[in-house]
This record gives sequence, C-alpha cells and structure tokens, in this order.
Amino acid sequence: MSDFFPNIPKIKYEGPDSDNPFAFKHYNPDEVVAGKSMRDHLRFAAPYWHVMRNPLGDPFGEGTALTPWDDGSDSLDNALARVPVFFEFLEKIDIDLYCFHDRDISPEGKSLGETHEMFGRVVEEFEKFQKETGKGLLWGTACLFGHPRYAHGAATSPSADVYAYAASQVKHALEATHRLGGTGYVFWGGREGYGALINTDMKRELDHLARFLHLAVDHAKKIGFEGQFFIEPKPREPTTHQYDSDAAACLNFLRQYDLLDHFQLNIETNHATLAGHTMQHELQTAIAAGALGSIDANRGDELLGWDTDQFPTNIYETTSVMIEVLRMGGFTKGGLNFDAKRRRESHEPEDLFHAHIGGMDAFARGLKIAAKIIEDGKFASFIKERYASFDSGIGAQVETGEVSLDSLDAHALSIEAPSLRSGRQEYLENLLNSYL
Amino acid sequence: MSDFFPNIPKIKYEGPDSDNPFAFKHYNPDEVVAGKSMRDHLRFAAPYWHVMRNPLGDPFGEGTALTPWDDGSDSLDNALARVPVFFEFLEKIDIDLYCFHDRDISPEGKSLGETHEMFGRVVEEFEKFQKETGKGLLWGTACLFGHPRYAHGAATSPSADVYAYAASQVKHALEATHRLGGTGYVFWGGREGYGALINTDMKRELDHLARFLHLAVDHAKKIGFEGQFFIEPKPREPTTHQYDSDAAACLNFLRQYDLLDHFQLNIETNHATLAGHTMQHELQTAIAAGALGSIDANRGDELLGWDTDQFPTNIYETTSVMIEVLRMGGFTKGGLNFDAKRRRESHEPEDLFHAHIGGMDAFARGLKIAAKIIEDGKFASFIKERYASFDSGIGAQVETGEVSLDSLDAHALSIEAPSLRSGRQEYLENLLNSYL
Amino acid sequence: MSDFFPNIPKIKYEGPDSDNPFAFKHYNPDEVVAGKSMRDHLRFAAPYWHVMRNPLGDPFGEGTALTPWDDGSDSLDNALARVPVFFEFLEKIDIDLYCFHDRDISPEGKSLGETHEMFGRVVEEFEKFQKETGKGLLWGTACLFGHPRYAHGAATSPSADVYAYAASQVKHALEATHRLGGTGYVFWGGREGYGALINTDMKRELDHLARFLHLAVDHAKKIGFEGQFFIEPKPREPTTHQYDSDAAACLNFLRQYDLLDHFQLNIETNHATLAGHTMQHELQTAIAAGALGSIDANRGDELLGWDTDQFPTNIYETTSVMIEVLRMGGFTKGGLNFDAKRRRESHEPEDLFHAHIGGMDAFARGLKIAAKIIEDGKFASFIKERYASFDSGIGAQVETGEVSLDSLDAHALSIEAPSLRSGRQEYLENLLNSYL
Amino acid sequence: MSDFFPNIPKIKYEGPDSDNPFAFKHYNPDEVVAGKSMRDHLRFAAPYWHVMRNPLGDPFGEGTALTPWDDGSDSLDNALARVPVFFEFLEKIDIDLYCFHDRDISPEGKSLGETHEMFGRVVEEFEKFQKETGKGLLWGTACLFGHPRYAHGAATSPSADVYAYAASQVKHALEATHRLGGTGYVFWGGREGYGALINTDMKRELDHLARFLHLAVDHAKKIGFEGQFFIEPKPREPTTHQYDSDAAACLNFLRQYDLLDHFQLNIETNHATLAGHTMQHELQTAIAAGALGSIDANRGDELLGWDTDQFPTNIYETTSVMIEVLRMGGFTKGGLNFDAKRRRESHEPEDLFHAHIGGMDAFARGLKIAAKIIEDGKFASFIKERYASFDSGIGAQVETGEVSLDSLDAHALSIEAPSLRSGRQEYLENLLNSYL
Repeated sequence: MSDFFPNIPKIKYEGPDSDNPFAFKHYNPDEVVAGKSMRDHLRFAAPYWHVMRNPLGDPFGEGTALTPWDDGSDSLDNALARVPVFFEFLEKIDIDLYCFHDRDISPEGKSLGETHEMFGRVVEEFEKFQKETGKGLLWGTACLFGHPRYAHGAATSPSADVYAYAASQVKHALEATHRLGGTGYVFWGGREGYGALINTDMKRELDHLARFLHLAVDHAKKIGFEGQFFIEPKPREPTTHQYDSDAAACLNFLRQYDLLDHFQLNIETNHATLAGHTMQHELQTAIAAGALGSIDANRGDELLGWDTDQFPTNIYETTSVMIEVLRMGGFTKGGLNFDAKRRRESHEPEDLFHAHIGGMDAFARGLKIAAKIIEDGKFASFIKERYASFDSGIGAQVETGEVSLDSLDAHALSIEAPSLRSGRQEYLENLLNSYL
Repeated sequence: MSDFFPNIPKIKYEGPDSDNPFAFKHYNPDEVVAGKSMRDHLRFAAPYWHVMRNPLGDPFGEGTALTPWDDGSDSLDNALARVPVFFEFLEKIDIDLYCFHDRDISPEGKSLGETHEMFGRVVEEFEKFQKETGKGLLWGTACLFGHPRYAHGAATSPSADVYAYAASQVKHALEATHRLGGTGYVFWGGREGYGALINTDMKRELDHLARFLHLAVDHAKKIGFEGQFFIEPKPREPTTHQYDSDAAACLNFLRQYDLLDHFQLNIETNHATLAGHTMQHELQTAIAAGALGSIDANRGDELLGWDTDQFPTNIYETTSVMIEVLRMGGFTKGGLNFDAKRRRESHEPEDLFHAHIGGMDAFARGLKIAAKIIEDGKFASFIKERYASFDSGIGAQVETGEVSLDSLDAHALSIEAPSLRSGRQEYLENLLNSYL
Repeated sequence: MSDFFPNIPKIKYEGPDSDNPFAFKHYNPDEVVAGKSMRDHLRFAAPYWHVMRNPLGDPFGEGTALTPWDDGSDSLDNALARVPVFFEFLEKIDIDLYCFHDRDISPEGKSLGETHEMFGRVVEEFEKFQKETGKGLLWGTACLFGHPRYAHGAATSPSADVYAYAASQVKHALEATHRLGGTGYVFWGGREGYGALINTDMKRELDHLARFLHLAVDHAKKIGFEGQFFIEPKPREPTTHQYDSDAAACLNFLRQYDLLDHFQLNIETNHATLAGHTMQHELQTAIAAGALGSIDANRGDELLGWDTDQFPTNIYETTSVMIEVLRMGGFTKGGLNFDAKRRRESHEPEDLFHAHIGGMDAFARGLKIAAKIIEDGKFASFIKERYASFDSGIGAQVETGEVSLDSLDAHALSIEAPSLRSGRQEYLENLLNSYL
Repeated sequence: MSDFFPNIPKIKYEGPDSDNPFAFKHYNPDEVVAGKSMRDHLRFAAPYWHVMRNPLGDPFGEGTALTPWDDGSDSLDNALARVPVFFEFLEKIDIDLYCFHDRDISPEGKSLGETHEMFGRVVEEFEKFQKETGKGLLWGTACLFGHPRYAHGAATSPSADVYAYAASQVKHALEATHRLGGTGYVFWGGREGYGALINTDMKRELDHLARFLHLAVDHAKKIGFEGQFFIEPKPREPTTHQYDSDAAACLNFLRQYDLLDHFQLNIETNHATLAGHTMQHELQTAIAAGALGSIDANRGDELLGWDTDQFPTNIYETTSVMIEVLRMGGFTKGGLNFDAKRRRESHEPEDLFHAHIGGMDAFARGLKIAAKIIEDGKFASFIKERYASFDSGIGAQVETGEVSLDSLDAHALSIEAPSLRSGRQEYLENLLNSYL
C-alpha cells in the first residue's frame, strides 16, 4: 500500500502517561469494559465527506485543506484515486467502519445515466478495498441537497421531476449500501424544509416526504436489504425550518405516517443543541420511543448559532452519551460516526489524526466512566428511591390505571398535605464529578 | 355597578383618525368582515391572572401594580371583592370572554377541603356576574405550579400524593369550568418537565402524565362536559425542559398515548418563538394535524430568552395569525386569549386599557388584512401553481401511490435534467407589504 | 448600452395603487420629505459583491444564481465584462451609489504585482462607467478574508508576511477608493477575531490591528483622501469571536487606541441582532458617541443564528432606522447600502429587482413615517416630560455637578418617598402603530 | 455558638477517595499550590443574598427554601437573628469572606431615616460577628433594583428624587463597607438600562449614571475608603437592555466618562454567556485593559436564556478561569464570590452545603490543573512560537511602528506568497484533556 500520510504512524494505545500526540491515551480497542471490547462498544465510523471531501471552506472564504493526493478535478479518475487514501486513513487511525454520501464518493456526470455508471464504478472500488482491509460500511446515504436542482428540497421539492431525480439517487445509494454490506441507511433532512412559509404548502410537502420514505422501505424489502433506516433530526440550516427539526418532531412525523416500525433516529450532538436540547435529552427521547439507532458524534458551540461540527472532546458530554448507549444495551446496527470536521485553520493532513485521536480518546474515557457509574448504581438507586411512592399504594394504582379523578380527590382529602423532598441536584452533580 | 376604573370610559370604536387613546381605531365589534362580525371572528378573551392577579413583579423586584380595590390579603373576602372589578373591566374594554386559573380566583385554604369550599364560593360569584353581564367563560385551568408542593411537577411529580392533590384540583377546576359554561379546558405544562435529567425518570413521568390526561377525559365524560381539552406548548421556563416543548412534541406525545382524539393545541406566540419557531409554523403544524384549537395572543422579544408575554401590537404577526385562523375556518370552541401582561413600569390601572386596546386594534387590522389577502387569492394561486407538477403525470402518481423507486428512476432517466423555478420569496414579501 | 436585463424596464414610481411588480409604490426619488428629496435622504447604494458576485451558494450546496453575462472564469476579461452589467443594473433600479470589495471586482493574479495591475485596470473601467452614467462610489473596502492566506486573520494574523499582504491590499483599495471619489472607506472585521483562545494572544492581535488602522489613517492623509473611515461591528461568523463584536466593543477599541477621531461606525441590522441588540440600540449607541456614519441596510432572522442578510422589508424596522438617521441630521459621507442577498431559491436575474424594489419601498415608507413622527413631536414631548425632574432643582444640580452623595442623602431624607409614574410603553406602542 | 445546621459537621478535606458528601475531596485550604495556599489563591466568598435571603422562588411559584431560623417577617429583630446563622454557615463551610447587599441584610423602614438606622444596627452586628469569627468582608453593594421606586432605574431613573434616594443608599452602603473592612464595593447594573427605547433618553441616562459613579468615587476619597470599585457586566434581565452589557461595553463607558482609573470589573460566568461570550473571553478582555478585579463564580445553562446562577461544577470552566487568574498574578482586592443559588427543588438547608462543597472542589481542581498547565508551559510556548514572525524583521517593525502602508506594500511585493501554518486547535484541545 502506498503511503499518503508519510509521517503518520499507525495509531496505537500507549496509555495516559504517553505524551506522544500520535498515540491513544485512553482508547485501547481490545480492552474489555463492561463485558465487551471497547471496539465493539464504540463502533467508531469515519465519514467520507469530512475526511476526504471537506475543503474546509466557509461562507466567507474558499477551502484551505491540503490534499496532495487530489488533483482537484471532478473526474472519475480522481474519485477512484481518493479511495486508497481513505482506506489508508482508516487503517492508520484504527477505525473499522465508515459512512458515505453518494455524490461525495463519485461525481455528477453529464447525464443521470452517466452519474449512476460512475457511481457503480466507485462502489466497486470500495468493495475491493473493504475486502483487502477488512473495513466495513456502517451506513450510506444520498446527497440530496448540494446540487442546485435540490434548491427547493428533494422529496419536498415542488417539482415532481426533481422528486423523481431524488428517488433515482436513493435507489442507487440504497443498492450500493446493500452491496457494501452496510448495516444502516440514513436520511438526513438536507433541504427538506422551507425557506419561508409564504411560498410553501407544508402539508403537501410532508405528504410527499412520507411517501418517499415508504418507497425506500418498499425498495429495501424488494432488494433484500435488512439494514436499519435512520432519520437524523436537525432544526435549521440550510433551510429556515427543517422538517426533521428534533427527535420529537421526527417521531411525530413517523407516527403520523405509519413509519415508526421502519425507522430509528440517528442523533447528532450539534443538531440537538441547535434545537435547544441537550444531547442526553434527545437520546432519552429516542430511547423512550424504542427508536435510538445510531449517533453522529461531534460537538457544537452553544454560543454560536450554526452547526460547527467540532470533534467531541468534552468528557462530560461523551460520558452522558455513553451512559445512554449502555442503558439501551449498546448499538446493534448503529455506531458512533464522527460527523465532525477540523477547524478551517487546521488544514494539514496530520490535523485529521489529531482530531480523530482526540474524539476517540474522549469517547473511551466516557465509556469507562459510564460503565463505572452504571456498575456502582448510585444514580440509579437515587432515582428509583425518588419515585418509590409509585411502587405501592395509591401510586401503584395510578400506574395500573385503577384510579379516577374522583378516587384521587378522595385520597388527597384523606391525607396530610404532602411534604417535599429535595431533588438533590447539586449533590448529584458533585457525585458525577467524583467519577471524572 | 360601582366604578373601579373611574376615569376610564367604556371603550368604543372611533375609527383610524381618532386620537383618543381610550378608543378603538380599528376594532369595530359588529362590523362584518368576510361574512362574520369582528367580534365573532376574534373571540377575544381576557385572562383573570394577568388582569387581576399579576403584581408586575419579576425575579429582581417586588410587584409595582396599583390595585386600589385589593386589600392585599389572601382571604376569601378579598377574592370575592375582586370579581366585580374584573367584570367592570370586561364591560369597559368590551371583551366577551375570559379565562381563569383556580388558584388565581380563589385562595389556598388551611386544608384541601377548605380550599375547595372557598373555590366553590368564588365560582358561584363568577356565575352570578356572568348572568348579570352576559360575559362568558372561554376556558378554565388549574394552577399546578405555584405552590411549593408542585416544585417537582404535578402529574409528573415523583410523589404520588402530590399527583393526587393535582388530580383533586383538576377535578374541581373542570367541574367549575363546566358549571360556568366554559367551551374549553387547558393544560399548560406548568412544571411538567425536569430541572435536570440527573435525577429524573423521564419515561415514567411521561407515562404518569398521559394517565393524568386520560383521567381528565374520563371525568369530563362522566360529568357531561363537552368542552374541548387543550394542551399548550412551551419549551422551557420554569423547568429546564418542559415536556410540552412545542407543537410537534405535544402531537408526538398525544399520538403515543392515544390522546389525539381528545386534545387540541392552544398555541401561544411567545412560546412558539422561545421554541425557535415562528407562530405561523406552530399554527400550521397544529392545523396539519387537525389540532389547532385556541390561541394565546401575545408577543415575545426574540432577543430575550424568556417569556416576556407582551401585548401583541405587530401588524405582521397579527396578520399571519389571522390568515391561519381564517384558513382553518375560524374558531369553534377556542378564541384569542390575551395571555399578556403590561410592563412592570406600566403599573397604573389605565395601562391595562392601553394594553388591551392596542392588542385588540392590532388583531382587528390583522383580520382585515388577512381577509383581503384570502379574498384576493394571489398568494394561494402562487402556491397552487408552484406545486402544479404534482397535479398530473408522474407527480399525480406520486400522490396516489402508483410509483416505486424503480419507476421514478426510470422516469428520471427518461427526462431532461429538471430546470428550476425561482421561489420568488422577495416578490411575495413585497406583495405582502402592499396589503399593510 | 447593451441590455443584460432584457425584460426589466427602468423602475419608476407608480404610487401605492400600482400592481406592477417592477415599479416603486413608495419610493419617489425627487419627492421632498422633511425638506430634502427622498434620494438625498436615503442615499441608497448597491454592493457589487451581492449584486454581481454572489452565486447564492451556502455551506450545503453550490451556487444557483443565473448570470448569463458571466463566463464563470476568474479572468480579467470576465471581470471587465461584468462592469457594464452592474451599471445597467444601477441605471434600471435607479440607485445612485455603489460599494465594492477589491477582490470581488478584480481577480487574484499569479503574483501580488499582477493582482494589483489587474485591479488597476478594472478600477479604470469603473471610472469610465461612473463618468458615463453619473453614478458614484459610496465606499470601498478590501477583501481580507476570502483567500486561504487570511485563514488566521489579516491585521491580526500571527504571520507578519500575511499582515504585509493585507496592508498592501488596503493601500491599493484605499487609493482606488480615492480615485473613484468614494466618500468613505470601510473595514469590516473579516477574520479579525479568533477561532479559539487556546491558540491566541488576543492582546497582541489587538495591538497589531490598531497599528494597522493607524497606518491606513496615515496613508489617507498622505494621498489626500478625505473620505470617512468606518468600522463595521459584527459579533461572530466567520470566526468564533470577531473583535469588532458590537458598537460598544468597537468604540471601546477606538478609544483605547486613540482612533475615535478617525473612525465612525457602519452599522448593519443583521449584525446588530446577531450581537443580541436591536438595530435602534446600535444606532443610538453610535450616535451618542458622535460616531454613526453609515448603514448596511438589511434584515436578519432572529430565530436563526447566522447572518441571513435578507432584504429589509419590515416597516417597523425601516421606520426606526430612519427616525435615528433624521435625528442625527441625516447622512453626510455615509448612506444606506443594501448589504443583502436574495434567497438561494430566488436565483433569476429578475429577483435582483424584486429584492431591491422591496427594500427601497420599505425605506421610503420608513422615511415618510419617521418624518411625520418627528414633525408631530409626540414621542419627543413624552420623553422630555418624563425626565423633567432633571430640568430644575436637585435634578438640574445633578446634571451640573453641584451635588455629592452627602447632599443627595440630605435631599432624600428631606422629601416624601418619591412616587412613580407609568412608563406608558403600551400607550406609546399604540401611538406608533397609528403612524403605520 | 448555637447550632442552626445541627446535622452538618464542619467541612474538612478528606481527599478524592472519600465518599463522605460533607467533605472536601479537592479543596485543601492550606495546601500550597504554585507558591501560595489554596485559600489565598481562591479567596472564596459567600453572598448573603443567596445563602440567607433567597427563598428559591421563581416567576411561576413562591419560595420553597426551608429556613427554620427565620420568622418570615421584615423586622429588624429577624434581620439580626439571621446574622449568627450566616456566620455559622461560613464557619462550617470554611469560607473566609462574604458579600452583602444593604437591603438583604436589613429591612426597608417606614422612612428613609428609619431604614438607615436599622441598617446601621445590623452592620454593627456584622462587625461583632466578624471580630468573633475572624471572617471578613470581600465587598458590599446597595440593592437599587428591588423596591418599586427603582422600577425605571436608580442612577438612570427619570426621577431626580429617585436618583437622590439611590445616592443616599450608596452613601450608607459604602460607609458600611468601609466600616466592615471590605476590600471592594460593587455596582451591579440592577435596573440601569431600559425596557424600551420608545420612552427612553439613553444618552441622558448614561450621563446621569457616570455622574453617580463619580460621586461614589469622591465620597470614597472623602471617607478614606481605599477599597476597589467594581462594575459588573450583564447584558439583559431584568431590563431589556442593561447598560453594562458586557466587559467591552463597561470599558467603553468607563473610558468615555473618565472612570477607568477608578473602576475594575467583577466578571460573572453566567453574565458572560448571556452576553454571547465565553467567561474566558470576558476575563481576557478585562485583563487586557488592566481591569480584571473580581469574579462572580457560578455557571449558566447556555440552552436557557436567563441567568440561572447555578453552582460552578464544570472542571473545564473552573480551569479556564483559574488560568486567567494565575496569569494576571492572582487576586488583590477581589476574590471568588459564589453568586450562585441552589435549584428551587433543592430546598433543604443541607443543600446549601452540597452546593458550596461542589463549587469549592471544582475550583480547587481547576486551580491545580491551571497551575500545572502554566508550570509546564506547553500552551504558552505554542502561542509564543505561533507569533514568532513579529519578534524580528518586518514583524518587529510593525510592533515598533517603523512601517507604513507603502513599506509594507513593498515588503509584500518582495516576498514569496506567505504559506500558512496550522492553528492546531484539535491538537491543543487534546493536550488540554491530558491535564484533566
């Protein structure tokens, strides 16, 4: 294998005392934590779009990323040439899984037919490299937002022809995901939303979107794809309002259109906070509906109003994510995909490694802390005790449905005024700090 | 009738050229607009809590409101003494409907029994004044958040006894609403939410809340109350996360717990913007689910992070609200309740009148503009035309379900690349301004 | 003159009853309002970057704008070919002034020398067209943020060579502004700020920035440029923190580094709201320091967290801007530059016209309302009366400095407890609505 | 000494392995870190208002705090009875310093004279307890926002009599601070700001405010008070816009009115984030102006829009604060005042201890990490190296002022295009995590 990252060694675990920036201090892939290797708990994935195709531009300036392996063209040859670079990256960073967007791995052709043909050729190349390296696909998706034809949305476009184009892309991306053994397929909202209600028929657009998702479910069945479908909540950006604005909005939509049996959620930290929620809230909301599937692992800046997609490094946040993942019994078809990008000023290839090492170590610490917290059971006991009045007596009757407003009224009139117990939030926050 | 607002005349319509601050410039109650009187379109209501019980305090200082009719005590006598003041206010401001919280109209007693007894006495007084004045009740509700016993929530409290107390209050408030001929009953989230997930069992709390709402539905049936139940979305404040955070979250909850047949939404402008949505978005979301019931008419300050509950004066906002109300065919059991308070610095009784006059005139203008926009049909035509590709051909097949990813793929491959049409947002914004 | 906008007529005033979308309904350039023509009051300018060079891309997709006159290259020829298009636009939309960024009008060359040479050639072309059409330059500026070399800032870059490059660009842009008769020169913060404090020496960067501005002042003197320097506040985007975050931060910086005699502020509506302030607040802050110079006229979406740069259409906002402009005595070297872009979905050339017509009409209405409000004097009288206690007695002594804590204490002890007067905010909001 | 907290022992250091919730795990007062005891580094203070007078109410409900020592009255006797409770708290929690508001320690009387008299009596009691316990006053302040008379502001009130009342309060609070040996006196903005510009003369109000501060400076001189004056930035709440909105706004004001020699800033974490800044940004802004004086140590919730005043427990945040404190050379007349309150649900006296223990331990950890980071010098070296191009050659000439736009232009033309170096933000974030 050629060497596109000549000065970067394969990243290995050296422990917390190492000061080698190109080593893991906490992520020790085969170390067993809570009955499973860290590798299997965390199921890290790297996204092709950020690792290989993000030029690190922003609305105020062109890209800065140095990519000596890339000739800058939109050609098929260049697309093929990028594939070995990506797999070398996966090897060196020791990440087993990846995710892709169709148009990021393969160019737009002169016709839709040519586009599909080139896509097929690139997928073949991925298949070859998967076999050679043992790496696998976590999930695939189609890019239904970059091209100007999708300016008004894809499945929610006012143009039926655009809708058909989007369907065509999804058909091929889904089939490619199936071929590459992907365990999931994601719909991120893209431009499914509106710029302004003044020119929008929201109800009709949502009907179209639901139909679109049903078509994908039907097609998966037809081709034998047994991976999990995910939708990914995000409240705004690029459109003023994205239909999949948060976990609750997605669940409402899935319930309304009879899609909840077929879809789970892929929750992203930065999308959660943009929606005004904590990541933990979004995870619990999804779990309570039996619908947490996968996670886009990144971090936002709560003082900024857009998706900064920073690498996750905050131990409090990775701990709270891993607590929820462990509580739901771990990932099955999902994983932790780093939907994160380096800062525009971190434009050298080695920064890709610093960024992922930091994210992996932060999640490794989060996993170990979460496992300890769950093993100790102090938080769980506190909560169980806090709701104990619903385990017997009138509380238990509430839960079993043996009460009415009349009977509760009678109960209330028969008792002393209830006394309060402290919620002990500060005590519990101190307890949490004792695990860090 | 005695005169608690001695310098304030009965407010009458004098037309846009009047410079009398104690006159309507636009609200002409019996003027017919789009086939119905303004009075019947707008169904204004005044909330007892803001008009009579808001001292205009804030977290940094005590109340400033001047209320010469109030002796400052929590006695039953004082509660009864406030009733005629409120009805004089309704008469003078020419508002036909009102809303109440149980604990705002009547005090907490030494025991729950005494509390209910005093409440009954005050409700009797309201009944008497309704008959005398012809005023009516829009909706009632119970205050399940003010007393320390509800610090951890009411229907979501970890204490079963507190849950029973809340049920007892709702039973009596619901029966009072029925007795007073209320056309609706509202659940506002109060403290149903959490301060921190660290001490919370969210799933169990939501189960309890759903049970609570079902009990209310059952009780309504039992007593023959045929008014509409509403829940009122709000994202935060007082708790860190309110369960009823926005329209979508409420609908998701109602669907999950089989409550959607029994509940509609009472949407408030300031709650919408706190949730990061426009009021129009929340209204359309509710309408699309057949669940828009009533409106809390106020205004927020989008640069501030809390519920400022200002009076609605922005013509753009009142117009957009009335467009949605007209499109859904008008209110049936709901109305426009001014859930708004004067600024703390506007502490004189006459400020109550300035505030309501401004809100009523702003909605009257909004109604007239909305009626003209709908009559002209320019916006509706634009939108219809924008989605025309779904009225026939492949688009119509999408809507009827006669397509698959395969057939759409074939269609896409058979056509020229679709060309885009401008969304004309700026043109439409100009068009909107031409109506103001 | 050739015709790049073949279906667009010269836009003329037709009055409020016109339903011609390509006509002004309110902007009547030569109509006299408050002693001056609307044209002279408003001093509209169009920015070259948004009109000619904004492809309407966003972080999630490529540009959509249709620009049949542009060959898509970065060549000098293409740069020259755009100039007549722009002047045709100015003619047809009837805007007298424009603004430019150096790199938007002219390309980056293979060397800095070539860059300057091409810039000179394009400026010559602008000069020619100014003479032919009578149009003039409001202000110029240099683009110190687009090129990767400015990734870490320009005047605040950690690289002295980058600093020199930036200085070189400013020298040439300033000289071009002088040559084209510009009445101002603007520094917008660009990337002068930081991505993270973790790698930043903020104090040293600010020292460098202040030096940079002094160098520009010195150079202006040297070349005889008597236009006004402006800095333009903006709180974030592209960097995490922009040094010129709001009016107060800019003024603090200008005072600290002895620059306040040489700089005024160019205030933008969307930047104000991103900073958590109203536009009116920022304008009054600048005016109170004698430092309001010019205005970037646009509108933001307060529910979104980035600079949406929408066209100004809200009559409340344009009114409040024009009240401040009239109160300060009108523009001298500044004007109203439409720093606004069409939505990405409004990608046709005619949308440029809808957008500007809407903005110009909205400001024309704002001007007329503001003039009426000032002429009537009701608001001014209310405010004067509100502070009347400082016009005589102890209040006047406070203002003249004839008091001490001791004497004020003695006064306070000698009087009755002061009684409050209502601030009448609701009454005044109603009064404002009576002007719309 | 009597025992108001009967079940709470004196809190002592037991080390990180202790699971006694009533012990410090990290704060070891006399342990020497970076050449000074932790006690002397941190200079913890407890605020009387939150510890003793915060009933834990909110806008939606009355207080919940259990305070068995308090008879609930506003009497002088009750005020005196609270004093020993507070000093017992200080003793048990092992905090050496405290802060007070005049009206929190002592009631409003029937006349201003009586108010002052009672205040004097309570101050005497504090003096006595200081002597007995060895505790000291960090700073005092006057409450100029709670009483209705200050609804429109105090030093910015439109009423000259209110202004005099405020001056009277400040005179007495300042004298009390002097008498109690306070090392500082704080002005927090209170209601110095506006609810709406529509009824406000901002410039006149700011002139009055500046005069007010000058009067305090003069009075301090007169009475021989050599403590430090502080103003405390906060952007909003209770008013729509607070004049002291952030560090830059305060510095601008102080410079404009010649007050910068007399005032430093008291920076609060939650106020920083409400203003859209990080705490570290506000600290560095103050330090760069030589104006960082003291710190209000708390934590906000960046997803909420108001001042939640939570106890500081985030180790990242306490570390970043202590890095800045160490870099500026430590506190002189300032300290770390816990301007934080328990959650409303944490209403038992023991929660006061949990809360403070957590805050103190979090700052102890922050101090130790910060000291290690500074000792190691890795971050400082990285930054020094990053700006090295300004240490010699053209960069050094920029700093010494030996350049012009012409000479920099010549330099730029003479060099190769500058190449960029990565800002290595991700690497540095990983490095930071290695200290936790």
